[in-house]
Amino acid sequence: MLKLIESVPNFSEGRRIEVVEEIIRTCEKFDKVWVLDWSMDYDHNRSVVTLIGTPEQINDALFDMTKKASELIDLRKHKGEHPRMGATDVIPLVPIWNCKMEECIEISKELGKRIGEELNIPVYLYEKSATKPVRENLAEIRKGEFEHFHEKILLEGWEPDFGPRKVHPTAGVTAVGAREHLIALNVNLRTDRIDIAKNIAKAVRHSSGGFRYVKAIGIELKEKGIVQVSMNLTNYKRSPIHRVFELIKLEAERYGVQIAGTEVIGLIPMDALVKVAEFYLKFEDFESSRILEKKLLEIFSKELVKENGED
Amino acid sequence: MLKLIESVPNFSEGRRIEVVEEIIRTCEKFDKVWVLDWSMDYDHNRSVVTLIGTPEQINDALFDMTKKASELIDLRKHKGEHPRMGATDVIPLVPIWNCKMEECIEISKELGKRIGEELNIPVYLYEKSATKPVRENLAEIRKGEFEHFHEKILLEGWEPDFGPRKVHPTAGVTAVGAREHLIALNVNLRTDRIDIAKNIAKAVRHSSGGFRYVKAIGIELKEKGIVQVSMNLTNYKRSPIHRVFELIKLEAERYGVQIAGTEVIGLIPMDALVKVAEFYLKFEDFESSRILEKKLLEIFSKELVKENGED
Repeated sequence: MLKLIESVPNFSEGRRIEVVEEIIRTCEKFDKVWVLDWSMDYDHNRSVVTLIGTPEQINDALFDMTKKASELIDLRKHKGEHPRMGATDVIPLVPIWNCKMEECIEISKELGKRIGEELNIPVYLYEKSATKPVRENLAEIRKGEFEHFHEKILLEGWEPDFGPRKVHPTAGVTAVGAREHLIALNVNLRTDRIDIAKNIAKAVRHSSGGFRYVKAIGIELKEKGIVQVSMNLTNYKRSPIHRVFELIKLEAERYGVQIAGTEVIGLIPMDALVKVAEFYLKFEDFESSRILEKKLLEIFSKELVKENGED
Repeated sequence: MLKLIESVPNFSEGRRIEVVEEIIRTCEKFDKVWVLDWSMDYDHNRSVVTLIGTPEQINDALFDMTKKASELIDLRKHKGEHPRMGATDVIPLVPIWNCKMEECIEISKELGKRIGEELNIPVYLYEKSATKPVRENLAEIRKGEFEHFHEKILLEGWEPDFGPRKVHPTAGVTAVGAREHLIALNVNLRTDRIDIAKNIAKAVRHSSGGFRYVKAIGIELKEKGIVQVSMNLTNYKRSPIHRVFELIKLEAERYGVQIAGTEVIGLIPMDALVKVAEFYLKFEDFESSRILEKKLLEIFSKELVKENGED
C-alpha cells in the first residue's frame, strides 16, 4: 500500500534564491519524493517548501535538506520580519494518504533523532509529537528566537528532545512535529475599518475565546482599500471552514459589513471543501468514497505499488 | 500522459446475477480498465456498471461487454419497469482525466461502428455524439422501446448511425454517446405532500421551464413519511448543484416546508462539490489545482506513465 506524507519545511533564507534552490535540489535523488510548491519572501527572509513522499524517503530527504541548510545558512547573519530560531526553522509532517497521525509522530521522532545526533542541532518535538504540553505550541518553543536560545536551552524544562543541550552556532535549533494539514484562509471584508477586522479576528480565534483550531489576525489591504481576517485553520476537521466562515459573516453583519470574498493560500485538502458542501447542501450519510477522484487515487496508488512490486 | 474515460453501460438484466457477473468478467483481461461499481435492480430488470479505463482499452472492453450481453440477454423475454431498447441499452462515455469531450465523441463513434458492423446491432449516437438534434435526447431515441423499434427504424429520420437498418432479433438496438458526468441527487422535503414535491420538481426541471441541465420528478418515500425531489443533473458545470439546491429551498419555503437532507446516488466528481464550496464561501480566483488531491492525481498519473514507458 502506497503511503504518503506531506511536509512543509521552513528555511531561514528568503533572499538568496541560489541557496533555496540548492536546498530543494537535495530532493532530486529521491524517486518517491515530489516538490509540489515553494516560495520565498524577502521581508520575512524565509522560504517555505511543500513536498510529499513515502515515509522512508521523505524522512531521508528532509534530513538532507536540513543538513544542506545548516551548511549554507548562518543565523548569526540572518535578519527578517518572521520570528525564527533555526536555519531549518520547522519541519511539520502531515499524514495525507494511507497514513495515520501516529505514523507521522513516529517519523518525526526518527527524523528529530537523526538531526540531533548527526548534525548536532538541538531538536524540539512540537504539535502532536510534543513531549510536554507547552511544546505543542510552536510559538512557545520559538519565543526568544535564535538570539536568546543560548540562555533558554539551559532553563528548566527546555532541554531539547534530541541532540546536544547547546544551540548550534550557525544553524540554531529546529522544531519537528506531526500535525494536521494547515489551511491558510483569508476572508475579505467590504470596509476599510481595521478595528472591525480586528474585532472579528478576536471573535473567531482560539487565543481570545473563539474556535479551538483557529488562529486569526485583522489586517489592512491598503491597495484594495479593504480589510481582511487572515487565518490559519490548524485542524479543519474539528474547526471546519463553514463554521468559521458563518461566524465571521454573522459578526460582520453587526457592523453592517459584507464579506467581499475568501482566498485560499497554498494547498487545501479536498475533504475540507467537501465538508463545506456537505454542510450547505445538508448531505445525509455522504461518504467521501463516492467522489470519483478518490476512486481514481485508490486505483492509481494500487497500480503504482503493483508496478513497483511492493505489494 | 495517462488519459481516462468513465463509462456507465446499462444492461437489460437485473434478475439473473450470473449473467451480469459474466458480462462484467469480460473486463478482467484489460489491465487498464477498472470496474468501480455495479448494481442491479429487480423491478427495473436492469443493471448499471461503472468503469474507467484508457481510451483504447475501455473501447475494447465495452465492445466485449456488448458482445457478451447480446449472447446472454434475449429482449423478447425481457420485462421490466425501466424503458429499454437493447440488451446493452446505452453506453455513455465521460471524459474524466486528461481527456476532452471531443475525444470521447471520437471513441463513441469507433465503438458504435464496431458494434454495428461486427455484432449487427443498430447503433444510435446520442447526447454530444448525436448526428441530429432529436437524437441528443436518449428518451427520444428509446421511445417505442424494443417492441416497436422494428417499425420505428424504418421511419424517415430513424436510420441508425451504424449497423443494419434492422433491429437485432434478440439484442435490439444500442445507444452510444459522449456526455458530461451525470449526478443523481435527491433532495428530501419535511412533508408528506407529494403535490409539493411535484411542483418543485416542475420548477427546477428543464422540460417545464427550469434549469437547462436538470431532470426532476417528485416522489413519495412512504416508509419515511416524506417526499423527495429526485433529480439527474446532466451538466453540473452549467446547471451547478448550489443553484438548483437554493431554488428548491426557496420554492419549498413558499409552502412552509423545510429541506430534510440531500442524498448523492453513485459517484460525484470532486469539482461539482468544489463549486458548491466556492459559491457559499465566496471564493475569489480559486484554482482547483490548489487541491492537494488534484496534485496527488497528477503525480500518480505521471508516475504510472513513466513506469509503463509510455511517456
